[in-house]
Amino acid sequence: MIDIFVYLGTFFFAISGVLTGLSKKLDVFGVFVIAFVTSLGGGTLRDILIGSLPVAWMKDMTLIYIITLATLVAIFFREKLEKLRVSLFLFDTMGLGIFTILGIEKGIDFGLHPGICIALGTITASFGGVVRDILCNEIPILFRREIYATICVIGGSIYFLLQKLTLSNDIIFITSTLLIIILRLLTVKFKWKLPSLYQS
Amino acid sequence: MIDIFVYLGTFFFAISGVLTGLSKKLDVFGVFVIAFVTSLGGGTLRDILIGSLPVAWMKDMTLIYIITLATLVAIFFREKLEKLRVSLFLFDTMGLGIFTILGIEKGIDFGLHPGICIALGTITASFGGVVRDILCNEIPILFRREIYATICVIGGSIYFLLQKLTLSNDIIFITSTLLIIILRLLTVKFKWKLPSLYQS
Amino acid sequence: MIDIFVYLGTFFFAISGVLTGLSKKLDVFGVFVIAFVTSLGGGTLRDILIGSLPVAWMKDMTLIYIITLATLVAIFFREKLEKLRVSLFLFDTMGLGIFTILGIEKGIDFGLHPGICIALGTITASFGGVVRDILCNEIPILFRREIYATICVIGGSIYFLLQKLTLSNDIIFITSTLLIIILRLLTVKFKWKLPSLYQS
Repeated sequence: MIDIFVYLGTFFFAISGVLTGLSKKLDVFGVFVIAFVTSLGGGTLRDILIGSLPVAWMKDMTLIYIITLATLVAIFFREKLEKLRVSLFLFDTMGLGIFTILGIEKGIDFGLHPGICIALGTITASFGGVVRDILCNEIPILFRREIYATICVIGGSIYFLLQKLTLSNDIIFITSTLLIIILRLLTVKFKWKLPSLYQS
Repeated sequence: MIDIFVYLGTFFFAISGVLTGLSKKLDVFGVFVIAFVTSLGGGTLRDILIGSLPVAWMKDMTLIYIITLATLVAIFFREKLEKLRVSLFLFDTMGLGIFTILGIEKGIDFGLHPGICIALGTITASFGGVVRDILCNEIPILFRREIYATICVIGGSIYFLLQKLTLSNDIIFITSTLLIIILRLLTVKFKWKLPSLYQS
Repeated sequence: MIDIFVYLGTFFFAISGVLTGLSKKLDVFGVFVIAFVTSLGGGTLRDILIGSLPVAWMKDMTLIYIITLATLVAIFFREKLEKLRVSLFLFDTMGLGIFTILGIEKGIDFGLHPGICIALGTITASFGGVVRDILCNEIPILFRREIYATICVIGGSIYFLLQKLTLSNDIIFITSTLLIIILRLLTVKFKWKLPSLYQS
């Protein structure tokens, strides 16, 4: 069941990448590359850092097919997708939740400290977007707007808190993923921000 | 014989890096670094992704000497090189062809899927230029102009088609490398472009 | 004793990252990330290139605590730190010296060629700053101002020269580290530059 969520997360992250590439007037290949790094960049860095090589997408062609499909879908339906911004945001947020927890679990598999696992989850969920922004020559949105990555850190901490209780792994996975998703929705709806360090 | 081509490819990729660095008014060290990442960046990312570590250039000092030589040559003869743009383009294109196929063959050695091997070949041939552009703070040329990477993908596909025939490895290597080179020459000469996604 | 220097170097590199992040008006999380990559980015790339995975900071939480502490200290005392620019520069320079030699020694442990070891030392000491500059969307200072990385290369060469003499490892470490530190202080004081390639 988790596999299905991975593929869904990959698909919708890829679509968000395609829309970014189109807004930058890239050609078809450039759009595909941006879709690729947006959806797989985080997991790739995670696998490199922990030494799980070759990286995950080299062993599962399904991920490549999904990104190709997402690129085609997003290009052909791009006018309609503009109107679908809200549902895209929802699925991007689902991807955020799932990828954070998947990253954490991979860290646990490698026997790493909970703090490092949370960092890995955050990297898995957000690094793709950072590379996308660098390739498109913008200051990574991660550092500018919403408290995107902070949500990953909070969600990851909750994951480890839940582990203290005697719950099944599936319940912990789904609960903490949902918490990240709900937290991001609330953050955007109520325009929560980190406390400002600067006097405006 | 393949080694000679690797070294030639490295040498001329390095020269293209040096010329870029000079145009950005970098100092000697900065120029060397740009030459280094332009020629070895692609192979480095390939080796990291598949876990062939330490990366190739750490085991073969010849590559470092070649880049140092290229840096010195390009700096001392930079006025003449400006006039040699055409021959530089030719050798850069040779590098493109050779590095694409070398990347593919390394992927095959690691038992990866043909689609992944083609991606590795493309990365080997084009990632160095992407890093060069990021370091020089430009939108990667990969995403802007010519159908650079698309040629790698086409050439890589031809490589695997040729493998279906019972040809010797050497003939497959040379044929597909030449096809990539010829394809790029034709692309630039006739200004072929990917179909535009945008109404102009 | 070397561990203490590692931690000191990490601490002060992190503070330099925080000050950069604050000057870019990043939020708390962004500031932490910049502090993190500035101090650990170089060692991370080194570990990836040689295949020492998981990377060092995943096995030593102390480094994470130090960076967290440095972020808090730098944020709370940022007005005073502005006046402490000189001492910061001193400690940043200490970090440069220590990290260069530590990188070289890790290369030696992996049985690499002295030229590669010097490259690894230079990467360990300077790559963090390069990533910081890319994330903040500037041309890496490495390529623009001082002869930062050149000093690492000179210091690394001296390290190997000292090894030809029959000195203890500790003395070689401390001597070459000090030489790098002194060289950088002199460089900045007397505004030494690499010979210009351009007519002004």
